Amino acid sequence: MRLSQYFLPVLKETPKEAEIVSHQLMLRAGMIKQQAAGSYSWLPLGFKVLNKVQRIIEEEQNRSGAVQLLMPTIQSADLWRESGRYDAYGKEMLRIKDRHERDMLYGPTNEEMITDIFRTYVRSYKDLPLNLYHIQWKFRDEVRPRFGTMRSREFLMKDAYSFDLDKESATAAYYRMFVAYLRTFARMGLTAVPMQADSGPIGGDLSHEFIILADTGESAVFCNKDLLEKPIPPLDTDFRGDLEPIFRDWTSLYAATEEMVDEDRFTSEVPEDKRVSARGIEVGHIFYFGTKYSKPMKATVTGADGKEIEVHMGSYGIGPTRLVPAIIEAFHDDAGIIWPVSVAPFEAVLINLKAGDEATDAACAEIYAALAAAGIDALYDDRDMGAGGKFATADLIGIPYQLIIGPRGLKSGEAEIKHRGTGERETLPIADAVERIRALVVPQRLDAI
Amino acid sequence: MRLSQYFLPVLKETPKEAEIVSHQLMLRAGMIKQQAAGSYSWLPLGFKVLNKVQRIIEEEQNRSGAVQLLMPTIQSADLWRESGRYDAYGKEMLRIKDRHERDMLYGPTNEEMITDIFRTYVRSYKDLPLNLYHIQWKFRDEVRPRFGTMRSREFLMKDAYSFDLDKESATAAYYRMFVAYLRTFARMGLTAVPMQADSGPIGGDLSHEFIILADTGESAVFCNKDLLEKPIPPLDTDFRGDLEPIFRDWTSLYAATEEMVDEDRFTSEVPEDKRVSARGIEVGHIFYFGTKYSKPMKATVTGADGKEIEVHMGSYGIGPTRLVPAIIEAFHDDAGIIWPVSVAPFEAVLINLKAGDEATDAACAEIYAALAAAGIDALYDDRDMGAGGKFATADLIGIPYQLIIGPRGLKSGEAEIKHRGTGERETLPIADAVERIRALVVPQRLDAI
Repeated sequence: MRLSQYFLPVLKETPKEAEIVSHQLMLRAGMIKQQAAGSYSWLPLGFKVLNKVQRIIEEEQNRSGAVQLLMPTIQSADLWRESGRYDAYGKEMLRIKDRHERDMLYGPTNEEMITDIFRTYVRSYKDLPLNLYHIQWKFRDEVRPRFGTMRSREFLMKDAYSFDLDKESATAAYYRMFVAYLRTFARMGLTAVPMQADSGPIGGDLSHEFIILADTGESAVFCNKDLLEKPIPPLDTDFRGDLEPIFRDWTSLYAATEEMVDEDRFTSEVPEDKRVSARGIEVGHIFYFGTKYSKPMKATVTGADGKEIEVHMGSYGIGPTRLVPAIIEAFHDDAGIIWPVSVAPFEAVLINLKAGDEATDAACAEIYAALAAAGIDALYDDRDMGAGGKFATADLIGIPYQLIIGPRGLKSGEAEIKHRGTGERETLPIADAVERIRALVVPQRLDAI
Repeated sequence: MRLSQYFLPVLKETPKEAEIVSHQLMLRAGMIKQQAAGSYSWLPLGFKVLNKVQRIIEEEQNRSGAVQLLMPTIQSADLWRESGRYDAYGKEMLRIKDRHERDMLYGPTNEEMITDIFRTYVRSYKDLPLNLYHIQWKFRDEVRPRFGTMRSREFLMKDAYSFDLDKESATAAYYRMFVAYLRTFARMGLTAVPMQADSGPIGGDLSHEFIILADTGESAVFCNKDLLEKPIPPLDTDFRGDLEPIFRDWTSLYAATEEMVDEDRFTSEVPEDKRVSARGIEVGHIFYFGTKYSKPMKATVTGADGKEIEVHMGSYGIGPTRLVPAIIEAFHDDAGIIWPVSVAPFEAVLINLKAGDEATDAACAEIYAALAAAGIDALYDDRDMGAGGKFATADLIGIPYQLIIGPRGLKSGEAEIKHRGTGERETLPIADAVERIRALVVPQRLDAI
């Protein structure tokens, strides 16, 4: 993409309304624009990151055996009356009346609707296990939305729902999501720690939050340091096999949010030099809640013995619109964002130090075409402005590699590559530059983990 | 995807509530489920098609120079008060009050919001031309939603908005979209005819609808038959060049919807043997509307001479959730849907005629792995049921190629391929089957046109 033809409204000043660094940087890097309280447009750069985050989530959900569909944003109130949550949900639910005065609502979550889909079509134990998920906009009318897309009212959620015959197989479904979540966050460069969680208003007795550590996290967390360095289940993990050992391994070390922490256990189970007491951001939450919805909504299947069985369910959420700022909280410096390659809006930025100079323009055009031919998703800063502004933009928007071409280098046949993360610079023959970028980028792409 | 692990709730009976064939087939093929009046879940098979349709739209929008972003579904009423449309829009607008009693609405379209984004960031004539688009859910509270997702209340829309300095460059932007639309529909296998249209409530004086002919179309259309056989602008069309000749070529032949038709012109301009009088489905609509929104909303840029200029705008819509049934209206027979490869949910279906038989299962597992390795998106019907049901499902859901493997063929080392569209069958050595499928599929994929 040529920057002169792109829409990248970077800001020089840090907007006053933004309290946390990710919100500030998303505004400054032209990633989002606020449209109303807790409501944001995703501008092109932000939209690209959001898409890559979604793609990683989808790949790992699919790999684990979950099947993607898409439910509408607006729901009928009747479904929620069946589960008993219509009155219970409170003011966070955005309630709507249509032109015929029917009660509708903007879905804050989808347990009721997915249970309705399940009971409409699934009749036999032979059709289980089943895990259905979608990625759709949700609305929760919070009193005080804040921190940009970290806690917005309209937000994107991946929500998966598992259906099983009994608690045992539901637990196996839970383990599959547990492992899929470990892989999902790791592929975005994040160290996410699963912590036993309160099951909250949804209910149930098996529940974990996935937390990444960040100073701006909303809650205090306590865990064993070894959890931060644990290797992630590999690409060839067999999701049809027994995943309980992985689950046991990860949950054997102490980790809890402030709502759940038992300080005696924390100090007795975790050696002093391993105790991590920090702040964290919740980026995923998984629940097992048994027959909480299948019972009132009559979601049953016929078992092998001909009897009707209420299915055991779980739900599994990830917030892509929250993950983007969470990644920024984890990866930034004073100059701006430092994207991991797997979610970077562009993998490299080609910086033309003298746009308008015929030789430099020609060389850059050739390199830009070569980057595209090599399959690199590159931004080409072809703007007619000084080098300082270009470097500042490149640093701010956090593209992993800057390929710098100017008249002086051209004379000696040399290009410069700056690694955004480390600040490292390398000078190399122009002819080798594209291959070098490729060699840097490819091993860090989506499927490298 | 193994069908035994998929969620494909096909129906044997044609649901009574469905009036048109696409609606019937989408329900029967397990593509959608109605959730409320004019509101649908997209079940896995339907969701896959919807995704492919979106991908084609995105590729052609990007190719034409439009830049993708994403605006929220819920909008503040204040923006619509600025343009004067808040009161004018009527009951089709879904109006909402949040917990603080602020007036919100579920966006039926986005002219106001995109104009707000534009005026917030764009200051100079140097930043033009600009075309921003998104694909987002919309809601229009129609009195009588019908025909499934063809006319639903909650629907997906690709809406692009162009910003230019004057009418001349806005017209060039209009031509770019005109050509992008021709390519978009053609890549889905559709023959879409651009017809001069009434500009309706949005206003303006340059407006075309893109119509595909179908007996179930909602409006009568009249056109020159030559338009149905016109070659589409090719892949290497230069969107930075002059596209007026393509526009003139397409619009020189008579074509009009019933709202716009001039019967005298139709009969005088179109030779009798070229007159097509048929019914049509609108799948796209493009408008130029000048300063209709930029003037009241003060979206101006500074010109080269330092003066403030109100920008000239156009908007360009395509409905992906309507395109899916429109494609089915164009491609089906008594047995079911016949997907063009470019939008097919799966490119091939592997039919195991004797699931449970060890040798057949082993052969199919091997072929299924080979299809995946060859990059074919295949469904594997591994269900434990009779061949008749499997053939019926494969025909109903419309997968372009059926690769049929059974114990008898295994003995002679032969497989059968059925072409869903023509009914043609070929018998060939099993060892050649995957390569044959690949050779059939690849030239018809997304990028072949």
